[in-house]
Amino acid sequence: MTLKVYLSGEIHTDWRERITEGAGDLDVTFSGPVTDHAASDDCGVAILGAEADKYWHDHKGAMVNAIRTRKGLMEADVVVVRFGEKYKQWNAAFDAGYAAALGKSLIVLHGAEHAHALKEVDAAALAVASEPEQVVAILRYVLSGRLPAGAD
Amino acid sequence: MTLKVYLSGEIHTDWRERITEGAGDLDVTFSGPVTDHAASDDCGVAILGAEADKYWHDHKGAMVNAIRTRKGLMEADVVVVRFGEKYKQWNAAFDAGYAAALGKSLIVLHGAEHAHALKEVDAAALAVASEPEQVVAILRYVLSGRLPAGAD
Amino acid sequence: MTLKVYLSGEIHTDWRERITEGAGDLDVTFSGPVTDHAASDDCGVAILGAEADKYWHDHKGAMVNAIRTRKGLMEADVVVVRFGEKYKQWNAAFDAGYAAALGKSLIVLHGAEHAHALKEVDAAALAVASEPEQVVAILRYVLSGRLPAGAD
Amino acid sequence: MTLKVYLSGEIHTDWRERITEGAGDLDVTFSGPVTDHAASDDCGVAILGAEADKYWHDHKGAMVNAIRTRKGLMEADVVVVRFGEKYKQWNAAFDAGYAAALGKSLIVLHGAEHAHALKEVDAAALAVASEPEQVVAILRYVLSGRLPAGAD
Amino acid sequence: MTLKVYLSGEIHTDWRERITEGAGDLDVTFSGPVTDHAASDDCGVAILGAEADKYWHDHKGAMVNAIRTRKGLMEADVVVVRFGEKYKQWNAAFDAGYAAALGKSLIVLHGAEHAHALKEVDAAALAVASEPEQVVAILRYVLSGRLPAGAD
Amino acid sequence: MTLKVYLSGEIHTDWRERITEGAGDLDVTFSGPVTDHAASDDCGVAILGAEADKYWHDHKGAMVNAIRTRKGLMEADVVVVRFGEKYKQWNAAFDAGYAAALGKSLIVLHGAEHAHALKEVDAAALAVASEPEQVVAILRYVLSGRLPAGAD
Amino acid sequence: MTLKVYLSGEIHTDWRERITEGAGDLDVTFSGPVTDHAASDDCGVAILGAEADKYWHDHKGAMVNAIRTRKGLMEADVVVVRFGEKYKQWNAAFDAGYAAALGKSLIVLHGAEHAHALKEVDAAALAVASEPEQVVAILRYVLSGRLPAGAD
Amino acid sequence: MTLKVYLSGEIHTDWRERITEGAGDLDVTFSGPVTDHAASDDCGVAILGAEADKYWHDHKGAMVNAIRTRKGLMEADVVVVRFGEKYKQWNAAFDAGYAAALGKSLIVLHGAEHAHALKEVDAAALAVASEPEQVVAILRYVLSGRLPAGAD
Repeated sequence: MTLKVYLSGEIHTDWRERITEGAGDLDVTFSGPVTDHAASDDCGVAILGAEADKYWHDHKGAMVNAIRTRKGLMEADVVVVRFGEKYKQWNAAFDAGYAAALGKSLIVLHGAEHAHALKEVDAAALAVASEPEQVVAILRYVLSGRLPAGAD
Repeated sequence: MTLKVYLSGEIHTDWRERITEGAGDLDVTFSGPVTDHAASDDCGVAILGAEADKYWHDHKGAMVNAIRTRKGLMEADVVVVRFGEKYKQWNAAFDAGYAAALGKSLIVLHGAEHAHALKEVDAAALAVASEPEQVVAILRYVLSGRLPAGAD
Repeated sequence: MTLKVYLSGEIHTDWRERITEGAGDLDVTFSGPVTDHAASDDCGVAILGAEADKYWHDHKGAMVNAIRTRKGLMEADVVVVRFGEKYKQWNAAFDAGYAAALGKSLIVLHGAEHAHALKEVDAAALAVASEPEQVVAILRYVLSGRLPAGAD
Repeated sequence: MTLKVYLSGEIHTDWRERITEGAGDLDVTFSGPVTDHAASDDCGVAILGAEADKYWHDHKGAMVNAIRTRKGLMEADVVVVRFGEKYKQWNAAFDAGYAAALGKSLIVLHGAEHAHALKEVDAAALAVASEPEQVVAILRYVLSGRLPAGAD
Repeated sequence: MTLKVYLSGEIHTDWRERITEGAGDLDVTFSGPVTDHAASDDCGVAILGAEADKYWHDHKGAMVNAIRTRKGLMEADVVVVRFGEKYKQWNAAFDAGYAAALGKSLIVLHGAEHAHALKEVDAAALAVASEPEQVVAILRYVLSGRLPAGAD
Repeated sequence: MTLKVYLSGEIHTDWRERITEGAGDLDVTFSGPVTDHAASDDCGVAILGAEADKYWHDHKGAMVNAIRTRKGLMEADVVVVRFGEKYKQWNAAFDAGYAAALGKSLIVLHGAEHAHALKEVDAAALAVASEPEQVVAILRYVLSGRLPAGAD
Repeated sequence: MTLKVYLSGEIHTDWRERITEGAGDLDVTFSGPVTDHAASDDCGVAILGAEADKYWHDHKGAMVNAIRTRKGLMEADVVVVRFGEKYKQWNAAFDAGYAAALGKSLIVLHGAEHAHALKEVDAAALAVASEPEQVVAILRYVLSGRLPAGAD
Repeated sequence: MTLKVYLSGEIHTDWRERITEGAGDLDVTFSGPVTDHAASDDCGVAILGAEADKYWHDHKGAMVNAIRTRKGLMEADVVVVRFGEKYKQWNAAFDAGYAAALGKSLIVLHGAEHAHALKEVDAAALAVASEPEQVVAILRYVLSGRLPAGAD
């Protein structure tokens, strides 16, 4: 059994690396958005031509990025959505809703301080974690049935 | 043709009333979440029993509220999602993602100051408006083909 | 908004009546299986001809009953599944799984003594209640946003 | 043709081994739930943190287990559900309902003493067997067209 | 509960009348193909222009008829397929397969002499009847839970 | 049986009126795009604000119009697509493809001179007509089984 | 591009071999029912236990065979259905209807003498052939764009 | 991540080669229609027999071609539709509508002179390009996150 996991959300910390490295020995394939912030913002105009209006500049980029994110979300077995400390992160919540409507297994990753604001998102999830290593432990358990050492 | 419209998001201003009243002469049925903030937060424990842990208190409420919101979203032709000035509003973005994945016609309603942060959400929308009256004008046009007086 | 509610499971107590009567003032339509135990067991052979073998006797009845139960489940917004004190009640759990796979809002109704054995079923539910009156309160809240008197 | 087979239900006897070993020469891949009872019960709290309340302890585990079981059920061609001698086994019946709603080919495995109680589940199945070796014979026939030696 | 019933197959006997009249007191709506044999054969060329080639004459008619039959099949809760004494009746079996793939409740109506030839069709059905009155009895039971008088 | 019919395509002749008037006695409901060419082109900017760039002017209008056309197409039983003498009419062909992918019954209406260029579109249709009155005759036949007078 | 082709219908002539051998150089995988007539009839009772009643003997076999045929039909890109000279062949027409409802590309293979009786089945097909070699030529063309030598 | 890309539309220029060669180093698989115009027009009659009537000659070919194009469209992640200088190209717009209804990521490729006529098609797209090399750049960015050299 190979698990296909999509890692959505916050791009300013190393949480993706902590998951992909922690799960390095597991039968998992990861996908996610482009995490180069500048490239992600500018991809539309860089490829398809400049826009005078900032709104359409952003729009063209968001549309091109959607080619990647929709494929990743649609093919995933598990969608992990990380909410960090800063920014509105509405795209993370959007991805969570999108994944929920597709019937994906959703894991939400956030600190306790966001629990109340994220209660509707968490309510659609099969697991709510605070640390990336917990996500790794879930993937390991789902694939092998093994719990973390010392967990008993 | 009757349009079924779901009004998602911010609950602290009168935008819902401005839409439902403005569209009073149209063949539209509206639905939306429970907008009584206290009832919405407490419905789970009020009906199903108290929880010592705030997380589960919130969780039970969010699950009960989902009975209403999922039905509204699934039955809607058009989903309007409003982002206001305050709070994280992740549930609004979650609803937008959910609606997008279901193939609903999405209208996003927010001020220009949120345009960059909402670019992925806007990219999934068929219209991005800043005022509730614009949503009314869209509904009127969709149903009747008539544009606002003076619009030409 | 009309809620379509399917009442599945235990047929030996008055829980269905307590719900349908309690919700008498609400915009709800109820459906459910045939609750006349003898008719339900014998409908296949009574209509389509006797069977020498008890297995096929039961089978013909279960198939005819499925015409009704599948329609009820597929058209429902909310599926309430009641587990009682006696019998295996595998058909109730089957209906719960069927409803979950269809993405229905699931409410499970059982006593605390069954909580551990039903944890996988409860995990697919949006609400777990112990009394029929709680189901009524949920339906009332979902439709009107009103909580039970004294709940605060 | 590779058959993907999910083995659901009872975890206290060796029926899974009898099937996987008996089908060792066939083009079949098997999946199933975690069958380590203690790990399965505790996986939620072991990974995501302890719960004071037994209900939420169970709930967190059931949710994490659902990541595995939903994937197995959704990807399967054939779902085999075993009902044993003991316990309520509502999760087995839940899986059978879930599989039926997804249109999976369902094989139910149980002793004759449960036939009446399982008649609704059996009615959704393409085969009802009493011994694991019969399941192996079905898989062999489906893949190769060969019947058991002496079967004529 | 209103049952939508599609009556497919043989058009040379009065079985449809026996069902629609027998079910005259029930909350059932019936649909079915055009049963005027000549009109059904010629509708394509009569409306869309003559064809020199008999094959295309037939084809144009079959396509126009499909507008009606697909709608009837897709909207039905229950599809009754009748196999009579004469002709190949491949369109009846085609409709049965179409209905089965759509997950409709299928009732097959035929004499015992066709049982072996129809075993794959019957295997997809929830009921196999030999007389139209049995179909009426099923519809009555499904809607009301009442069995035929004298059936006990 | 009520037929829901969507009338897509060319907006410069009276073909829609010829169909809706011809079918005035039938149980049919019609929908279609906004056929006021100027309003259709300008609806986006008239409601949501002017655009300096003609491309985005058009884009905003096309998106708003999609709210109406997608609903009409998705709810229709029958989609009639008319190709006229002038213009590229790519939106008509787009609607035909959209309808085909949704499994709608497609009727294509065009003159013989376009037959070769439309062969892929026609291949997805259940009927290809050249006059609006033929569409009316099809709707009448589908609903009532009656062929045009003199057709035999 | 690999084409997955399901070969349904008549089992008394060598048409399957003529197709699979003719397509031996193409990127095609074939599946189909068990074509050993005796095994196909008896598989149910041979594996799951004898039945006194011939109807249930047949039924058990048809159900077990459905595990194979449903998988083959559901996974196919192209479903070829062959109608031969003899027997009712209702299972072939059933498979054609099943494939049509799933949106599969359907090729029907039959002699001209059956054209009228099969007009509804042919109307759901993308090709109607009379010889297995034509099916091979279609598969070759679909994969490579090459027409048969001499075809011009 | 492998992207499956379907290249639909105009067959008279080298745009397909410019894309497939430009993307030669990427993890992309391409599919598309048969681009040999004569073979594409005649495939139906060449394989299945001549037709006296040009309409049916075309029809048989369009149906056979649909076996290939439907598979390509249904399996694609990204559908690129090219509109060229000449011809009606209704099949290109049909494919765009088909892809849109299936929820595929749509890229439209056309010169600025067609922008107004294609506004409804463009409105369903995630990117609108004028040069094949822009499509290559999009595919490269989607797979690797890298923008074209000099794009900043």
